[in-house]
Amino acid sequence: LTLNILFIGPAGCGKTTLTSAFGKWLERDVKAAVKYVNLDPGCKVLPYKPDFDIRELFTIDELMKDEKLGPNGAMIRASELMKDNSNVIVDMIGALDADVKLVDTPGQMEIFVFRPAGPALIETLRKTGATIVVYIIDPALASTASGLATAFSLAIATQLRLDAPTVMVLNKSDELNVQDIDELLTDPEYLRKRAIAEKSGAMIDLALHCVDAVKELSKFYRVVKISAKTGSGMEDLYSLCHEAFCCCGEL
Amino acid sequence: LTLNILFIGPAGCGKTTLTSAFGKWLERDVKAAVKYVNLDPGCKVLPYKPDFDIRELFTIDELMKDEKLGPNGAMIRASELMKDNSNVIVDMIGALDADVKLVDTPGQMEIFVFRPAGPALIETLRKTGATIVVYIIDPALASTASGLATAFSLAIATQLRLDAPTVMVLNKSDELNVQDIDELLTDPEYLRKRAIAEKSGAMIDLALHCVDAVKELSKFYRVVKISAKTGSGMEDLYSLCHEAFCCCGEL
Repeated sequence: LTLNILFIGPAGCGKTTLTSAFGKWLERDVKAAVKYVNLDPGCKVLPYKPDFDIRELFTIDELMKDEKLGPNGAMIRASELMKDNSNVIVDMIGALDADVKLVDTPGQMEIFVFRPAGPALIETLRKTGATIVVYIIDPALASTASGLATAFSLAIATQLRLDAPTVMVLNKSDELNVQDIDELLTDPEYLRKRAIAEKSGAMIDLALHCVDAVKELSKFYRVVKISAKTGSGMEDLYSLCHEAFCCCGEL
Repeated sequence: LTLNILFIGPAGCGKTTLTSAFGKWLERDVKAAVKYVNLDPGCKVLPYKPDFDIRELFTIDELMKDEKLGPNGAMIRASELMKDNSNVIVDMIGALDADVKLVDTPGQMEIFVFRPAGPALIETLRKTGATIVVYIIDPALASTASGLATAFSLAIATQLRLDAPTVMVLNKSDELNVQDIDELLTDPEYLRKRAIAEKSGAMIDLALHCVDAVKELSKFYRVVKISAKTGSGMEDLYSLCHEAFCCCGEL
């Protein structure tokens, strides 16, 4: 049985680096057979050797040249092409033989998640094996109470849209003091107090509503701290993936 | 007193077209003095003549060439440049003389909203006049119960992050039957029922939590239906902007 793991998160959160680091850890420490899939038509260099690469079908550069598009237009076009070719793409991913397939997604998450490409591809991918999403939170965007509420809102929007079991990780835990984020996540009263201190006027009400939602929804998630750079937290991530895998009813 | 209106929403929702259509309506029907600002360094052609254009400072194409970056890297670099130059940019916007300044933002919203550029720029822009955000919902992404919850989550994440009064519009109301979305928005029981019918397993719980959040948060918003194409709803949008303007405590 194959486990497909997609890495998703906003531009710059470290999807590609984590794909590579987690894959290397799986090969070395778990002795798993890992295959790497790149679905980002706009990347330039990759730290891993992709076993399937969407750039074999099209690249942003080519679309800009061939269809005389600007970079935005080319990304939207790429997203349409990804949707139209989702059967072909999934066939090629499905044909790879592995215990775990790690799927790196487009740098700009919105062309994948908030357009039809992502949902279409995941729906098809599910037929080839258990499919889960690793949603990457950038601690730089989650170090305030409202920042954390923002990151959660975005993660939840992603999960609802992709309709796949989702695991949340706090990446780059080597870079920032994530101790405070941990406190925000585990102490609802502290989270409320910080939200009130940060905002003013009507924004306090909005922030508190979102804080309550984080409180409520954090029951669904155990957020794991990792660092693609130092390799810390890889084992936690692996067991979290297995939990999601077992809960998602595909076993 | 100047009103700065920023148009924000995911790739393909129609920011640029709405900026142009709303501006033309303001000039013609309200006799307002309107200036147009383009903050998208990756656009190719614009349907309006920008009075300030970020492409005078840098473009994605140039960054790709000069810094040998891929399109993703260039967009992240552009976002950093926008943040580093936010004072210069806001000075140039502030120097424009107008009743209303319409600000078109990057095609990929995440490089503006979910990186430091957007918050930094809006904080500075606020010193030059009342500043509000028009958040554009694409009906194609909001026609299911969980789609609507997704769109709301994304809008709320944006508002919390940008810390500015936000108005929500449902664009492209000419293209789709938005009657059903209206019902989803105004009838919480119907919204719940649809969410349950759409999802399965643990996703039902998540969807219902989000549906409850939409119900709760929709008190903060009156969603206006517009069409940049046919021009319908422009008057509604204008009064909604004024409501937000008066409530935001900057008058």
